[in-house]
Amino acid sequence: MPKIELFGPVSEELEIVEAELSKNINTRLDLLRKASTHLIAAGGKRLRPAFALLAARVYQKDLGHVVPLAVALELIHMASLVHDDVIDNSLTRRGTDTVKRAWGNRMSIYAGNYILARSLALVAGYQRSDIVDVLADASMDICEGEIIQMMSAYNVNLGLKNYLRRIERKTALLISVSCQLGAMVSNADEDEVRAVKNYGYYLGMAFQITDDILDFVADEQALGKPTGSDIRQGVITLPAWYALRCAPEKEELAVLLSSPEACKTDAEHIIDIVVNSDGIEYAYHVSQHFARKAEKCLDMVPDGEAKEAFLNISDFILDREF
Amino acid sequence: MPKIELFGPVSEELEIVEAELSKNINTRLDLLRKASTHLIAAGGKRLRPAFALLAARVYQKDLGHVVPLAVALELIHMASLVHDDVIDNSLTRRGTDTVKRAWGNRMSIYAGNYILARSLALVAGYQRSDIVDVLADASMDICEGEIIQMMSAYNVNLGLKNYLRRIERKTALLISVSCQLGAMVSNADEDEVRAVKNYGYYLGMAFQITDDILDFVADEQALGKPTGSDIRQGVITLPAWYALRCAPEKEELAVLLSSPEACKTDAEHIIDIVVNSDGIEYAYHVSQHFARKAEKCLDMVPDGEAKEAFLNISDFILDREF
Repeated sequence: MPKIELFGPVSEELEIVEAELSKNINTRLDLLRKASTHLIAAGGKRLRPAFALLAARVYQKDLGHVVPLAVALELIHMASLVHDDVIDNSLTRRGTDTVKRAWGNRMSIYAGNYILARSLALVAGYQRSDIVDVLADASMDICEGEIIQMMSAYNVNLGLKNYLRRIERKTALLISVSCQLGAMVSNADEDEVRAVKNYGYYLGMAFQITDDILDFVADEQALGKPTGSDIRQGVITLPAWYALRCAPEKEELAVLLSSPEACKTDAEHIIDIVVNSDGIEYAYHVSQHFARKAEKCLDMVPDGEAKEAFLNISDFILDREF
Repeated sequence: MPKIELFGPVSEELEIVEAELSKNINTRLDLLRKASTHLIAAGGKRLRPAFALLAARVYQKDLGHVVPLAVALELIHMASLVHDDVIDNSLTRRGTDTVKRAWGNRMSIYAGNYILARSLALVAGYQRSDIVDVLADASMDICEGEIIQMMSAYNVNLGLKNYLRRIERKTALLISVSCQLGAMVSNADEDEVRAVKNYGYYLGMAFQITDDILDFVADEQALGKPTGSDIRQGVITLPAWYALRCAPEKEELAVLLSSPEACKTDAEHIIDIVVNSDGIEYAYHVSQHFARKAEKCLDMVPDGEAKEAFLNISDFILDREF
């Protein structure tokens, strides 16, 4: 994922978003407030707000009207993280305890639902049903993606399409929607909205592939979570998918990845097989392909500091090495 | 809860709601569709749609415009049931397996989120942010209520206010909102909306108290779930609250209800203590009080078959005996 410096043109607005995030979970209920505050304090790069703000900046200088949308997008993202923590039994995320570890399963589900409802209230403020429509559709697609991911675990026979569909739902969709809505609330016309929406989509695909690579090769501290977490949960990402087809040990790998037990106990060995195949390099090329497609979408976007920032973000992916 | 016959004036529309419920969860994803269909097939009285339709019928004859709202309200209710099942580890609800038992925890969380998103899409169709506002506020309040209930478990020192707040969030709010929104989409003026909203609120309070009584005294088959489920989870409802203050065995009861273990192993004994106190009778009187308050709100509502039905529903509570 890109560094926050890349979002320079909207850095001031991102600070406002940060302050508004805290204000928006200020419930009277002590335990709920603590759980939600904990979640906000755990950080994250606020990528979705950043994309919404940048997309808006293409068309308007003043971004005050985008802040509630940006906050809502981050809240939606946060809610999905809390629910994923319940489901995955994760105990740490971004280096700190998850809400689940600190307060239990019940609190996580409620906190997630509460945060979602809050985001809905923010979006209602725009009095635009097209915005609610886009978010409702995205939410359903994201749920479907989570179910596809769940059903795909430990299945070594799935095609590339299944992987791409999973990362689309997991990451690309909400980044795409962030760009789309940022432009929509800023008087962009239909073609312009489509251009930034598509940019967000392809960039999101590239990001998620990069993230999936990092789960194999990253430094744990830099990653903020243990490496190999995908493998341990039987989630077969692009490097593993490639190794299943092309590694010399592909038969052994298929047996290992089909077994929930082996995925846990032999995770290190599985990672070695994948890293020693050309899986990382292959995935890297696919991520580059999407980053270039993203860049191409910017041809339709008016010049300016926001477009410059968008280009820098895709360049960041293109220049990355593993 | 009242029999469905009481909603006679909107019985045709309720059939349309039933058909629309199935249509609305028709996702391409087989597993998700099965889980959601299972949930719909498990039934329930569609009380929230019924109240929305009746409230609308007070002001308009044709109710086609209310159907998406009615469907959305039932979906919101269903989503909260799926999430509660995850949290409570419930294995049966309304006599059939819960989604959790049939498909596991993950599927329950995703199915709940999916159903919520679908309801959002339906509500967006009205292009009215005041409706989204009402639902967002209600959703947040309901989440808070679930957390209050969770924090209140096994606590024998809480006042009547805590109980009333819990049942307000758990039941009265969404019934109140159903009446309110039914009137809002049907050109009722502000005072009229407030009248049916308050009716729904007081009636919802009366209903929930009746339900809480049934958890002590009902026939398991008629109830569709095991009796004593509140006690087993340490949820102290009105009959138990009274017994904690007035039963001859109140000291023993306080010790038992404070212990998660005793609530499970000695549930039958606890129920006996509560039933032998005047707890059931006391709760019954409180429910009657709310039913009468509900009836009073109808003074403001124009005469007609819908008002007649509303009166029959509150009479059903008033005439009930335990």
